[in-house]
Amino acid sequence: VAKLLQIDFPFTGPFGSEMAEALKGLAVSITEEPGFIWKIWTENAAEKEAGGIYLFETEETAQAYLEKHTARLKELGVEKVNAKIFDVNEDLSRITKQQSRNT
Amino acid sequence: VAKLLQIDFPFTGPFGSEMAEALKGLAVSITEEPGFIWKIWTENAAEKEAGGIYLFETEETAQAYLEKHTARLKELGVEKVNAKIFDVNEDLSRITKQQSRNT
Repeated sequence: VAKLLQIDFPFTGPFGSEMAEALKGLAVSITEEPGFIWKIWTENAAEKEAGGIYLFETEETAQAYLEKHTARLKELGVEKVNAKIFDVNEDLSRITKQQSRNT
Repeated sequence: VAKLLQIDFPFTGPFGSEMAEALKGLAVSITEEPGFIWKIWTENAAEKEAGGIYLFETEETAQAYLEKHTARLKELGVEKVNAKIFDVNEDLSRITKQQSRNT
């Protein structure tokens, strides 16, 4: 069953197009992670936070990515990462116009 | 600019198809909220948590919905709601296969 991974953490930038320019190589590499399906990149320059909403094929691949990403963020000085893993309720999400996959 | 609203809270169920059956009327009503674009419904029966990832047209409509939903959850006995509002980095999300909108 696909799992949704929700991550956020304190982040001082860059944001927006500058962030996109700096992290596009990372973005490409993330698409090659085992079990990766998609990621929405989140950012809040005013609150100095960033994160991501991900879909992975399994709990195991979501968990493995979370560990890898948490270690990478720690190297970048991010000490505290908030992370939760969820199932998606596809029946309700269909009603509210966003299934986790377009199948 | 569209805003992503990330919500989660303690929840003891129902989950899965039982949750879908119980809350489908609510799901339909959410699609009629001002500024609503989409919602992914999240749930974790093992951790006893649930929530949602939403996209709204504006910060104001996201904030207004959050206040309404928090009050509704409180009536259902949910005291603590974790909520954050983010921008979506569309350039990076395009690379990772999930833009916030299909435009």
